[in-house]
Amino acid sequence: MKKTYQEMSREELLTLKAALEEEYKTEEAKGLSLNMARGKPGISQLELAMPMLDVLNGISDMNTILGNDTRNYGDLDGIGECRRLMAAMMEVEKDNVIVCGNSSLNIMYDTISRSMNFGVNGSTPWCRLDKVKFLCPVPGYDRHFKITEVFGIEMINIPMDENGPDMDLVEQYVNNDPAVKGIWCVPKYSNPTGISYSDEVVRRFANLKPAAEDFRIYWDNAYCIHHLYEDIHDNVLNILEECKKAGNEDMVYIFASTSKISFPGSGVSAIATSKANLDFILSKMTVQTIGHDKINQLRHARFFKDIDGLNEHMKKHGALLRPKFEAVLKELDAELAGLGIGTWVKPRGGYFISFNAMPGCAKAIVSKCKDLGVIMTGAGATYPYGKDPQDSNIRIAPSFPTPEEMAVAAKVFTLCVKLASVEKLLAEMS
Amino acid sequence: MKKTYQEMSREELLTLKAALEEEYKTEEAKGLSLNMARGKPGISQLELAMPMLDVLNGISDMNTILGNDTRNYGDLDGIGECRRLMAAMMEVEKDNVIVCGNSSLNIMYDTISRSMNFGVNGSTPWCRLDKVKFLCPVPGYDRHFKITEVFGIEMINIPMDENGPDMDLVEQYVNNDPAVKGIWCVPKYSNPTGISYSDEVVRRFANLKPAAEDFRIYWDNAYCIHHLYEDIHDNVLNILEECKKAGNEDMVYIFASTSKISFPGSGVSAIATSKANLDFILSKMTVQTIGHDKINQLRHARFFKDIDGLNEHMKKHGALLRPKFEAVLKELDAELAGLGIGTWVKPRGGYFISFNAMPGCAKAIVSKCKDLGVIMTGAGATYPYGKDPQDSNIRIAPSFPTPEEMAVAAKVFTLCVKLASVEKLLAEMS
Repeated sequence: MKKTYQEMSREELLTLKAALEEEYKTEEAKGLSLNMARGKPGISQLELAMPMLDVLNGISDMNTILGNDTRNYGDLDGIGECRRLMAAMMEVEKDNVIVCGNSSLNIMYDTISRSMNFGVNGSTPWCRLDKVKFLCPVPGYDRHFKITEVFGIEMINIPMDENGPDMDLVEQYVNNDPAVKGIWCVPKYSNPTGISYSDEVVRRFANLKPAAEDFRIYWDNAYCIHHLYEDIHDNVLNILEECKKAGNEDMVYIFASTSKISFPGSGVSAIATSKANLDFILSKMTVQTIGHDKINQLRHARFFKDIDGLNEHMKKHGALLRPKFEAVLKELDAELAGLGIGTWVKPRGGYFISFNAMPGCAKAIVSKCKDLGVIMTGAGATYPYGKDPQDSNIRIAPSFPTPEEMAVAAKVFTLCVKLASVEKLLAEMS
Repeated sequence: MKKTYQEMSREELLTLKAALEEEYKTEEAKGLSLNMARGKPGISQLELAMPMLDVLNGISDMNTILGNDTRNYGDLDGIGECRRLMAAMMEVEKDNVIVCGNSSLNIMYDTISRSMNFGVNGSTPWCRLDKVKFLCPVPGYDRHFKITEVFGIEMINIPMDENGPDMDLVEQYVNNDPAVKGIWCVPKYSNPTGISYSDEVVRRFANLKPAAEDFRIYWDNAYCIHHLYEDIHDNVLNILEECKKAGNEDMVYIFASTSKISFPGSGVSAIATSKANLDFILSKMTVQTIGHDKINQLRHARFFKDIDGLNEHMKKHGALLRPKFEAVLKELDAELAGLGIGTWVKPRGGYFISFNAMPGCAKAIVSKCKDLGVIMTGAGATYPYGKDPQDSNIRIAPSFPTPEEMAVAAKVFTLCVKLASVEKLLAEMS
């Protein structure tokens, strides 16, 4: 049985510190350069989709199944076969889907921007309101928080546990405060915690009774088919179905993309929601654009064909990502288990491992890692305004480096966790 | 010498009307189905770019010249070689260009939307102002007007002549009214009139002294290399250069795309403007998206290579479009010249022929064409709010049908012009 750091005496901590500093110097001398900052697919994952670029080679038929020429203007809401593909992935009907451009983040931004300028299905434009608030389950996705921040929307932290957001708190805010217009959710293999929302959490979401008519759930299903293991798949209840059952059909926007299936930046994205919501969205989208890239939609539809094609492809992604995740988890287990200086969850999918350090240590850890040549996501990034009230959460993104590099980077990380923790404990003693 | 319709007696007009109605019945019986409504490239134009889809075939090197992997996240402002290509086309420096997604219309919409929410380089967000006005040279591009309309921006008509907008009026508004925040321009082969702005007009634009610090010229250079003839090219002075000379470097946004060079919907678009403007745009764009489709940018850069490649390609477009334009012009000349019931300009580039009917006749003409199976752009579409005060202008889009179909459609059009004009003159007599 290991002694936790908290159980150590000042002398023991000082001895440990000296040893860790020796290790630190050794690592420093290596001049590493590794990046675990962002959920970037690895090169081997990108290679998997290269045949997609050839799928239209020498093809004379550039028409959709319905006979529309994908090379010309038209099909504002996306070509039929790609809408069908994305609908299957998002577990909704084709008629509930619009296929858009290359980025679901852009759809989310546009959705908030549209609400600011035009309101939601006829409600008062948010730019004319004194106050607009969003609930932000934390830790969460930094780019969600940046969108609401840039529009001056007040963000309220909602703690997450292994089942999802604290629904008592969500209900309290949403059902009573008409200024609360939305909540950011990553329901499956959550960014960064890796957990998936429980059935009860999804049902409580669907049964919200919002004080604001223009409240919507922003359901970013970014990792819907992004499993790490072939035999263990998290399942999340269908939010659109559940909302419909609860008479809240218009209450959710679902977002997804193939950014981490085909190519980041050259995939297709989609929004799925009710007919009423789609009609309103299209009424503005028809002014914004004549249409999205339909040749790329055709490429995706012809390459993946259907949900089985997508799932087969994602098995290969899982096989490439698994060793990277396991390299990190192995180091965390070997180096940090039982020391009382950090907790983490083993994810079954998605792109991240979320690490909770001793309060007050996250910034110091990330800074030490940086000094050793290992770039992590900035501490605090997983919280609105970049402010982690506990200075505890660190997002680890294992996807881009090789498994071997990941093992090295994770080792460096655990060293920095230990050293920062010892320093913190010693500072508290003095 | 033909007699104009205006010189005819009531009896002559009645006789003519009867003859035209006979012709009309003959055409009606044919059950035509032709579309001259939108500036859609013809299929043969699209075929020209098909080899572009194969340019990345079996290519192992998906990196930019600078070594960035186009398949992964990064290069928010576009890959270097595509920025260089678009800069050459737009006659600006690479550093003044951001390459965006598939549609310059979308950049324009986003530019207005961003100004509504965030102002322009630090000015008050337009959504907080009581009144925002835009100048709209008329006739103009309906999709420009739709953007300003949907945002509730008041549009003011500015008459166009063969040199461009009425600059006395432009100066009067821009230099005196701080609510005037922009003007929509299509400086070359203008939509729909086909004219290009004279040097004097461009210089007067560059030397405006706007009452509003956040006034910008929205310079939609949609047809910058879209010549119909190899030996006659309109040249328009470089607005960014001229603005710089006049100390007004930040006053213009230039937009362009390859929608009518490679593929509508699957091209690349770009904005060119001053460093200060680009910095502000990027500060918001970095929240809106992680980046645009860089694989498609690479495809364009490798296929077209440079401005010579673009120009060579556009020669082929010109050769395909020329007979279509000439088929229309031939019919207009043969059937309508000297009758006093319509005027038009022979364009040297672009996508449209602008026709001015006798005041009060445009709607009737378009409606009659529709009844005969020939779809035209809606009458009034070339004016803000869809309201042509004279009910006179009709935009003819000859690009999509074949030259043979165009000849048939143009014949039908001239018949409808004649009939509507006779009816109008008779109504005025009674």
